[in-house]
Amino acid sequence: MTDSSVTPINWHQNELILLDQRALPREETYLHCRNASEVARAIHDMVVRGAPAIGISAAYGIALAAQQADGQGTDRLEAAFTELADSRPTAVNLFWALQRMRGRLNQLGKVDAEALAREAVAIHQEDLQANLAMGELGADLIAQSGRGDILTHCNTGSLATGGYGTALGVIRSAYKRDLVANVFADETRPWLQGARLTAWELCQDGIPVHLIADSAAAHVMKTRAVSWVIVGADRITANGDVANKIGTYGLAVLARQHGVKFMVAAPSSTIDFDLDDGDAIPIEERSDQELKQLQGVTIAPEAAMALNPVFDVTPAHLIDAIVTEKGVVLAPTLDSMRALAF
Amino acid sequence: MTDSSVTPINWHQNELILLDQRALPREETYLHCRNASEVARAIHDMVVRGAPAIGISAAYGIALAAQQADGQGTDRLEAAFTELADSRPTAVNLFWALQRMRGRLNQLGKVDAEALAREAVAIHQEDLQANLAMGELGADLIAQSGRGDILTHCNTGSLATGGYGTALGVIRSAYKRDLVANVFADETRPWLQGARLTAWELCQDGIPVHLIADSAAAHVMKTRAVSWVIVGADRITANGDVANKIGTYGLAVLARQHGVKFMVAAPSSTIDFDLDDGDAIPIEERSDQELKQLQGVTIAPEAAMALNPVFDVTPAHLIDAIVTEKGVVLAPTLDSMRALAF
Repeated sequence: MTDSSVTPINWHQNELILLDQRALPREETYLHCRNASEVARAIHDMVVRGAPAIGISAAYGIALAAQQADGQGTDRLEAAFTELADSRPTAVNLFWALQRMRGRLNQLGKVDAEALAREAVAIHQEDLQANLAMGELGADLIAQSGRGDILTHCNTGSLATGGYGTALGVIRSAYKRDLVANVFADETRPWLQGARLTAWELCQDGIPVHLIADSAAAHVMKTRAVSWVIVGADRITANGDVANKIGTYGLAVLARQHGVKFMVAAPSSTIDFDLDDGDAIPIEERSDQELKQLQGVTIAPEAAMALNPVFDVTPAHLIDAIVTEKGVVLAPTLDSMRALAF
Repeated sequence: MTDSSVTPINWHQNELILLDQRALPREETYLHCRNASEVARAIHDMVVRGAPAIGISAAYGIALAAQQADGQGTDRLEAAFTELADSRPTAVNLFWALQRMRGRLNQLGKVDAEALAREAVAIHQEDLQANLAMGELGADLIAQSGRGDILTHCNTGSLATGGYGTALGVIRSAYKRDLVANVFADETRPWLQGARLTAWELCQDGIPVHLIADSAAAHVMKTRAVSWVIVGADRITANGDVANKIGTYGLAVLARQHGVKFMVAAPSSTIDFDLDDGDAIPIEERSDQELKQLQGVTIAPEAAMALNPVFDVTPAHLIDAIVTEKGVVLAPTLDSMRALAF
């Protein structure tokens, strides 16, 4: 798409070709998915990750299922909808994208493979457009506080989205406007999305990046000129609480403590107005092996237990700005979030 | 020593046999050091780590140097003192132990290998005794708040000390008194001392431990019954500021935010009354490769820069208790710290 030499999600008529993000930056390999089950497995196994990218991939999963049931009744896609919805629990974009595909399917009245493929492509392209819009809106906010260092967590770039990125899109737009001196990228254990993906994307764009251990963030905020922490979101509730990659909540507490502003950049499809607040968000816990092994190397005793929640919830009161393609909500509340929806 | 089936520091007449902690928990291998240079290299390369263990090893390094200069003038050990002092910059126990060996050397008036070896053994044994005393004092504090979960960072156990441990010694003593329901051990990037060493020591003792990603600490404090964060220290200044493993400062901010108490357990040799406050402590920055590779596996693009400060400073006002073998300082200040010294 833009600002990246690889695209993670590639739609080719009768297959979805996904960049296997688990092997980056060592290897650039692709997984070919030819049906919805293969897409669901790729989402579950984190071949593709990042809330918007998961939603887009799931939409293509429905498009693949439609090819195998072209012209038949709408119920023929039920199994695909169920399997894709069960692939990951936390990111709401997944359910949003499936809901949109279901809406189109109902509109069509029967399975129309070509029309459903067009809908998935539209979801993909709209996500890129949303990211470009968010980039400008977020950069406008940074312009108000002036040029400085940015700290970010996980990966929210081209690899996590339909292109350009959410939080990383804001950083890209701000960098073009000379508002970013340096990016500190948390390595983001256990999957190391920051080290493997964010550092890689920023290096490709020539944006200065320093990788740091997740636990160095407090020290960096205290000793360096960090003006903003910018992150993405997997689900935002009606009151502005934000579920995002584990570690985000701690960063928000630390940012407030150090007078650093805290921005969440996410497409409006990330907002779940059905949930009152963050306590209602299901938090995915993944296998303890993700902590006890690293790319095949054992790093903890087999007898040890591990707790591996991969998301946490940041309360709205710690957030200075939520940036969506529809506009910016400063100091989010139930009312200011609702105003965005209409 | 106690509560551990392996000892990291083993003095055998004319060599110092160090457990190579870099290979744990996969392998139990030992490095044989026969002179001060080999000990200095082992400290620098983190074969042995942990502030008290570094101090003890350095003392034995002088004892080895003394064997090669037995009966000669005191100046014959100057090179060994310099080389050992240069091995790591942050932990003050290193300089304290070297100072004590120098004091004994000056007292002797010439190199007396046997007397200097006895002094190093005394430093080692006194450290173990100090840990046992701290264990009881720290457990007394936990008894006041009642049984609960403990969160700890890095490794402060038998492997980091002359035996038993500082923060981990407190956890051991508290567990024996049924005051610990569960220990959350931060994995502690980049060296993973928590995953590799703390989880391993606790498993060997049968103390329930859950390994967590460093960035999960805030979520765990918010959602679990954590009553204390307990950590060690590499240097404590006159006012009670504490330099310790990177991530400690962030944990202290988060603990205060969540009503979790924060304890530092360290022998009195960790206190540096020559430094007014934490701003004066030299913070070691290690190679960016420690972040970009993990046990030989590349986990970040080679082009990325990395910032790898391995310690941070926690201000005294975030600390509820400093536990030493000489007594406990609650809510440390210049005056309360000075009172401990006399």
